[in-house]
Amino acid sequence: MQSKLFTKTRKEAPKDEVSMNAQLLIRAGFINKEMAGVYDILPLGLKVINKISDIVRDEMNKIGGIEMKTSVLQNKEVWEKSGRWNDDVVDNWFKTELKNGSEAGLSFTNEEAYSSILKQYISSYKDLPVYPYDFKEIFRNETRSKSGILRGREFYWKALYSFSKDEAEHNIFYEKAKAAYQKIYERVGIGHLTYLTFASGGTFSKFSHEFQTICDSGEDTIFIDENKKIAVNKEVFTDEVLEDLELEKNKLIEKKAIEVGNIFTLGTKFSKPFDLKYKDEKGEEQLVFMGSYGIGISRLMGAIVEVFHDEKGIVWPESVAPFQVHLLSLGEDGQAQKIYDELEKKGIEVLFDDRDVSAGEKFADSDLIGIPLRVVVSKKSLAAGGVEIKKRNESESKVVSIEEFIKQIK
Amino acid sequence: MQSKLFTKTRKEAPKDEVSMNAQLLIRAGFINKEMAGVYDILPLGLKVINKISDIVRDEMNKIGGIEMKTSVLQNKEVWEKSGRWNDDVVDNWFKTELKNGSEAGLSFTNEEAYSSILKQYISSYKDLPVYPYDFKEIFRNETRSKSGILRGREFYWKALYSFSKDEAEHNIFYEKAKAAYQKIYERVGIGHLTYLTFASGGTFSKFSHEFQTICDSGEDTIFIDENKKIAVNKEVFTDEVLEDLELEKNKLIEKKAIEVGNIFTLGTKFSKPFDLKYKDEKGEEQLVFMGSYGIGISRLMGAIVEVFHDEKGIVWPESVAPFQVHLLSLGEDGQAQKIYDELEKKGIEVLFDDRDVSAGEKFADSDLIGIPLRVVVSKKSLAAGGVEIKKRNESESKVVSIEEFIKQIK
Repeated sequence: MQSKLFTKTRKEAPKDEVSMNAQLLIRAGFINKEMAGVYDILPLGLKVINKISDIVRDEMNKIGGIEMKTSVLQNKEVWEKSGRWNDDVVDNWFKTELKNGSEAGLSFTNEEAYSSILKQYISSYKDLPVYPYDFKEIFRNETRSKSGILRGREFYWKALYSFSKDEAEHNIFYEKAKAAYQKIYERVGIGHLTYLTFASGGTFSKFSHEFQTICDSGEDTIFIDENKKIAVNKEVFTDEVLEDLELEKNKLIEKKAIEVGNIFTLGTKFSKPFDLKYKDEKGEEQLVFMGSYGIGISRLMGAIVEVFHDEKGIVWPESVAPFQVHLLSLGEDGQAQKIYDELEKKGIEVLFDDRDVSAGEKFADSDLIGIPLRVVVSKKSLAAGGVEIKKRNESESKVVSIEEFIKQIK
Repeated sequence: MQSKLFTKTRKEAPKDEVSMNAQLLIRAGFINKEMAGVYDILPLGLKVINKISDIVRDEMNKIGGIEMKTSVLQNKEVWEKSGRWNDDVVDNWFKTELKNGSEAGLSFTNEEAYSSILKQYISSYKDLPVYPYDFKEIFRNETRSKSGILRGREFYWKALYSFSKDEAEHNIFYEKAKAAYQKIYERVGIGHLTYLTFASGGTFSKFSHEFQTICDSGEDTIFIDENKKIAVNKEVFTDEVLEDLELEKNKLIEKKAIEVGNIFTLGTKFSKPFDLKYKDEKGEEQLVFMGSYGIGISRLMGAIVEVFHDEKGIVWPESVAPFQVHLLSLGEDGQAQKIYDELEKKGIEVLFDDRDVSAGEKFADSDLIGIPLRVVVSKKSLAAGGVEIKKRNESESKVVSIEEFIKQIK
C-alpha cells in the first residue's frame, strides 16, 4: 500500500546534488541524503539493493564463493603489516579513537582483514582454494563527493577474495569470476552496455579488469572494440597496450562509461606481508596466490539509474525494480483492492497507490518511481472492459480484461 | 561440504576471552576476534545471524514494520538537535574526522536519524502511524569489553521506531510489539526462559520493558513472578514498584539473566527537538508520539550459546542452527554422498563432513559446532542396517535404514 509507505516523492532534490542518480533517487524516495556522500537507504531503495545483492550473491555462490561478514572497525596492527595503515600510503581512511587512546580504522577495503583471518585457517594445500566474500558498508574519506551514490563516503559493496595454490589455479578462477560478473550485468539489465575493460594492473599483472557501462554521464573514458566486445581504459591507452591486446586503433570507439566492477590479480602482494603460506604436496612451504573481485552494490543502483531514466523519472529493469506492478486506483478502490489481493496471492510484488490524491499526481509519481508495469483501474478503464496497462519503457497503453491481466502476469 | 568450509575448529580460544559465548563461537569457527569487542562473522556464524534476522524481520513485518537502512556515518548537526552529540551526555561515541575537518559520528543508536528522516515525510495525520526499522552495525566505544558478543564495540542489531499520533495509538502498537518480541524468543528457542521485565523508564513512562533470559552467566539480576510470567529488574526493585505492579515480594525468585531486547516509550522526547509535528483532523499541529524497539542480533546469538551448551560445545535450537543435519562419513564417502544429494534435493541444509580426518576428530567437531542432528555413515552403521542418528541434545543414538531416514526428515 502506497499509503503505508512513509516516503513521498518530491519536486526538488537538494540543491547541492548535481548527479542525476542522486536527484532522481532522492526525489522518488529511494534514498535520503544524510550528509555529503552519505545516504540512508529508504524502503524503496532497500528493495532494489536487496534484488541486486541477491543476484550478485547467487552468481558468487555458483562459482564457489562462501559468504561471511568482516567487521567495520579495523585493527591498526593488521593494517601495519601491509603498510597501508599509513595515511601517506592511503589518504582516504576514516579513523577513530578507542577509549584507551588506541586507534581503529573504518573498512575502506578488505584485503588485510581477509589475509589476516585466512592465515589462521590455511596450512595445507588441502585447504585451498577458497573463495570467501562479504557484503558490507565501506568508508572512504573522499575530499569531494558529487557523484551521488556512484562515489559515496559510505557505500555498500560485495568483495570476494580468492586464495589459490598458484597462478595456474588462480587463472582458472579468475576467468570464472569474469564470466560471473558478465552474468551479473546481464541479469541487472545493463549487459548490452557493459564491456570488459583493460585497466592498469598492479604488481603482479599487466592489467586489471574493469567492467564499464557506457553512459554519457560516466567519469571514465574507454575505447571499445565492438566486434571483440572488449574495451581499453584511457589510462592504459597506448600503442604498446593495443599491440599487446591485438587491437587496431582505428576500429576503436571512444565512449564515456561508468565503472561498475573490477577484478584484480593480487598475486602474493598480501600473502607475503601476512606470511600466508601453505605446505604443498611435497611438504614445501608456498605463498598463497590471491585475487580480489569487487562490485559496488549501491554504485550499481546509481549506474542503473544513470542509464535508465527519462525526463519523467527512473525506468527500472524488471529484475531490480522495487515492485513489478504499480497499481493505480483512480477512485475505484474496491476493484483495485480485489486485483491487489489476486496479484499478492500469485506472489507478484505490487505497489498499490491507494492514496487520496489526484490522478495527475499518481501518474507523475508512477513515472518518477519507475516500476516496470503500470496498471490503472478507473471508471474509464472499467467501462472500456478492464484495466489500462502500460509499460514504463513504452508509450502506448492498452485495456485488457481483469481476468486476462491476472491470468497472464507472472 | 565441510572440506570447502575454510574455518576449522580450535582447541583453544584466545586467552583474553573470558566469556563462554565468545570461547565456543571462536573455537567452533562461527566468529573471529578482530580486536577486543570486535568480531568478524565467519560463514557458520553468518548462517545463524541470518536465521535470527529472518525471524525478527518476519515478526516486525507482521506488526506493520517497514524495513530501510540508515547510514553508519552520522551527521553532527542532526545529533546536536537532541543534545546527544556532546561527549558529556553520551560518553561512548566513536567519532571520526572528514577531510574538510568537520566531524561525523558512528551510529550508536537511531532515534535522531529516524526523527530527522521522518520529519521530511510526516505532515498530516494521514501519514501516521508508521513503523520503520533497520538492521545495521552499531558502534559503542566501551571502556572494557569482556562479555564476548553480548556487548561488543561493534554489533549487529534491529531497531524499530514507532511514530504515532498520540499516546493511545502508541499504546496499542506497544502491546503488539511486546507480543511480537515474545514470539521472537519463542521462535529462536529461548521463549521458556525469557521474561518480560520491568526496568527503569525514561521521561515519558514509569517503566521501560526488557526481555530477560534466565542464565547463570547473565550480568543482570531480576526477580521473577512465575505465575504472572513477568519479572522486575533489580534496578527498580523497590516496595513502591512492587505495589504498583501488584507483585508480592515473597513470591518472587531472584535469578541472573541476560537482556535480549528492550522496548521504550519515548513520547515526545525526540519529536520536540526535531519539531516533528503533524496536522490533526482539525488542522491543529501536534507532536508525534514515539517509541523504540531494539534487539541485538549478535547479542541474541551469544545469549543462545550461553544458554544452550554443554562441556562438549554448542547445542543450537533447530530454528537458528547453521545446518539442520551434520552428516559424518567415516570412510564411506560414496554412500554419504548419495545421502547428501538426496537431502539437498529435499531442501535440507546439510553440513557434510567429507574431510580426511579421524572419527574421533569428526565426533568432537560435530559436538563443538552443535548442529541439531548428527548422522553417521560408517562400515558399522551400514552393517547394522543404515545410518546412525543422534540428536545433539540427546545422548542415545539409533540406527535407521537410509530410506527411512530420508523419508522421515523434514
